[in-house]
Amino acid sequence: MHSPSIKRRLCVAAIAASLCSVAPLMAQQSEDAEQSAEQRKNVILIIGDGMDDQQITIARNYLKGARGKLLMDQLPLRSVSQILTQDDEAPSKPVYVADSANSATSMATGISTSRGRIATSAGENRDLVTIAELAKQAGYATGIVTTASVTDATPASFIAHTASRGCENPNVMKPFEDSPRWLDPTACEADRVTNGGPGSISRQIALGNHDVILGGGQKHFSPIAEESKKSVSELAQNNGYRIVTDQQGLLDVQSSALVEDKILGLFSPSTMPTQWQGEDGRSAEKPEPSLLNMIDWRLGSVELPSTMICEDNPSFDGIPRLKQMTDIAIEQLWKRSQQGFFLMIESASIDKQSHKRNPCGSIGEVEQLEEALASALKFAEQEPNTLILVTADHGQAAQLIPAPSMFKSIGVPVYTPGHVARIITPENQVLSVNYATNDFPSEEHTGTNVPLFSNDVGLGKVPPMVTQPEIFELMKNHLFD
Amino acid sequence: MHSPSIKRRLCVAAIAASLCSVAPLMAQQSEDAEQSAEQRKNVILIIGDGMDDQQITIARNYLKGARGKLLMDQLPLRSVSQILTQDDEAPSKPVYVADSANSATSMATGISTSRGRIATSAGENRDLVTIAELAKQAGYATGIVTTASVTDATPASFIAHTASRGCENPNVMKPFEDSPRWLDPTACEADRVTNGGPGSISRQIALGNHDVILGGGQKHFSPIAEESKKSVSELAQNNGYRIVTDQQGLLDVQSSALVEDKILGLFSPSTMPTQWQGEDGRSAEKPEPSLLNMIDWRLGSVELPSTMICEDNPSFDGIPRLKQMTDIAIEQLWKRSQQGFFLMIESASIDKQSHKRNPCGSIGEVEQLEEALASALKFAEQEPNTLILVTADHGQAAQLIPAPSMFKSIGVPVYTPGHVARIITPENQVLSVNYATNDFPSEEHTGTNVPLFSNDVGLGKVPPMVTQPEIFELMKNHLFD
Repeated sequence: MHSPSIKRRLCVAAIAASLCSVAPLMAQQSEDAEQSAEQRKNVILIIGDGMDDQQITIARNYLKGARGKLLMDQLPLRSVSQILTQDDEAPSKPVYVADSANSATSMATGISTSRGRIATSAGENRDLVTIAELAKQAGYATGIVTTASVTDATPASFIAHTASRGCENPNVMKPFEDSPRWLDPTACEADRVTNGGPGSISRQIALGNHDVILGGGQKHFSPIAEESKKSVSELAQNNGYRIVTDQQGLLDVQSSALVEDKILGLFSPSTMPTQWQGEDGRSAEKPEPSLLNMIDWRLGSVELPSTMICEDNPSFDGIPRLKQMTDIAIEQLWKRSQQGFFLMIESASIDKQSHKRNPCGSIGEVEQLEEALASALKFAEQEPNTLILVTADHGQAAQLIPAPSMFKSIGVPVYTPGHVARIITPENQVLSVNYATNDFPSEEHTGTNVPLFSNDVGLGKVPPMVTQPEIFELMKNHLFD
Repeated sequence: MHSPSIKRRLCVAAIAASLCSVAPLMAQQSEDAEQSAEQRKNVILIIGDGMDDQQITIARNYLKGARGKLLMDQLPLRSVSQILTQDDEAPSKPVYVADSANSATSMATGISTSRGRIATSAGENRDLVTIAELAKQAGYATGIVTTASVTDATPASFIAHTASRGCENPNVMKPFEDSPRWLDPTACEADRVTNGGPGSISRQIALGNHDVILGGGQKHFSPIAEESKKSVSELAQNNGYRIVTDQQGLLDVQSSALVEDKILGLFSPSTMPTQWQGEDGRSAEKPEPSLLNMIDWRLGSVELPSTMICEDNPSFDGIPRLKQMTDIAIEQLWKRSQQGFFLMIESASIDKQSHKRNPCGSIGEVEQLEEALASALKFAEQEPNTLILVTADHGQAAQLIPAPSMFKSIGVPVYTPGHVARIITPENQVLSVNYATNDFPSEEHTGTNVPLFSNDVGLGKVPPMVTQPEIFELMKNHLFD
């Protein structure tokens, strides 16, 4: 991997990139643009993974206070997306809870599939054309920005095709070897290169032609590629990708990337660290009932986990913010096509930190999404033909519950059978977050419909309710009608 | 209580009231109206108690299928309401989870108060003027329809004022006598008649002047009223209320009520029974792990509760549907004022059945709300100056979770630590509903923001997000601007 350093724009040299607004660059480029801004069309799809109404409310209370509004709350249009999932064994039958693979596939392709699938169809395993592919074919620039590995289910569903989300890199393509325990060893069989398939997700990305791909996931690009002597990274470089792996590399892209360069930014081995964590790294914990209470629920007492604050996560040091990746992606995509661009931005760890019962992690990721949204809105002010959609892919386990219980006055111990984190908010009140879909190391998703927001470009186009595959139609219509 | 029977309209005599559309009656009355429909203004506020996005999604999947849409989903405007609650001991401080008393007070009065309060202010216990009172004073007809007791928190917050929701009838006003265990024996002290207060909620309703009040709660009107020798019912009759207690009485109202009559319908001793219940009366149940699994979560097995269908609740026989009460309330209110009316309709047991972990009960109540909404929309077709708002007061515990677990393939038992009901839907798939905010006999509320829908009259007036007290402003503006 290389990070060539050429002379930088003054702005970049002088101050940190996160302080460099996209706007002045846009203004300058806009003057030069052969095609007027009115004719260019852009779609920015922002996905908060697992960002359901509970997660939004928890984050709003923490970040803005009970009476505050998030930036997404201030968008002119709020709709709702009903998630669809199919039964892989009986594809006409519904399943009521999704994972990120099938829900991202819905948005990317307009077709509802079964859990775990990356832009392939339920049952018959047919490749489904994605909005990023359609856009690229039609001359748009295309980009993906995520805080997950770029090979993770949500980004992958826009730029790859596999039967299983597990087929992330060459190592897991080999049967019975290095396969994660949850992955059926035959899951990647049809996608193997030796079987005429497209290979692992990282290989597909490396051999692809999308313009800007930024996120985590170095470990999926370092193995030797399938049926090759080169690493996946080397395949990517041979295919025209400039690979960057740190803040400095990202700044160098901003100052020196050529329009011919494709950009692959991989800023952490796997998922990018979150900006915040619970106090001393704590997550939600189980209440501890007294022995007497364990014998009879009406007796004894319970000790709830002690309250905690959210604190900076030391692992986040030196990691690019989602906003910074967003700003650079928008800038680079804008330079690359006179037609416009499609960009998917994911704040991934709202979900991942909810699986791990860490509300501080999730809240920090909502804040990152908000910053990215601010960048997108700023761009859209200058380029008004930019459709911005903000949504979630599926619901998550976290619930905002009373602190203390509504039934406290009855005088018996009342507490969650699951895990609870009791966070002290900036308003100095206790925000109690319950995780109780299972006692396994990872919580379940939920099947609730999720919010769908739009900027003013969506007014009159985005109805008050859509099914998730209709989000594909909204984006396609904007780019192609 | 009496149900005078006078000659009935042909429509009523010939067919069941539920088949008698409101529309033809409206049309006829409209011809006679001195004031044109354009000048009359009506507000219909429909509250699904506890009807958050999880409840809506669960009901949608069951009633309309995964790809279906509820009637509320088809309304032209979908917004969201952020619930506000104050700390009674420090009223400027927020609390992050509401109950129905303070959340209904927000909507009824425009002021955020503390849990348990019925249209009184946090801390200082000042009476707050309600939208129903403002409307009545200004010459509008006013009505309340609910499937709860009419003295329950949601309806009471529009038509009464007490420091505690517990002060429902004369018996609980007496200190230390008959007080429910959860009610602080001093909670109703300031509201006692002997202390210069307005008395119990039922007494306030009996002595009030709202035109139509329909729901459950006979038991709150049969006791001897405070400082009186008469029952609360008798007080109500002396105050001009015609009291009806069954279907026939309701039909008689439709055929024979005079414009001078005020109507108090009490169709069950307490909360009205729900139309549906779980198979054989079952609710959600705890999974049963094997002994080995109880020793080590990675070992052994678990038996999940067996699947069930939803079935008719035999106790619902002869109980008026919410739609029937709605139709008659609209018809009677329309007759009573040339200015227009305010009507609050509550489907109460979405919440109450979620407290009891009975998803079939909640789903049936969403269906009842949908029918009432259909009636309201039909009326608004003829009387287009009718603002219809549909919302929830707060979130509830129920969560739609995967069936089976997302982690099933790992091969260890993964199951909720709470209670789960596994319902067979009309699509013949399993819909798994988790209740896990506590192990007490009643689940907790949650603090999530809740949906707010509007008919076309709200377009351009209802923003994409409101705080719950702003719902009061929306209604007031419609009636008074």
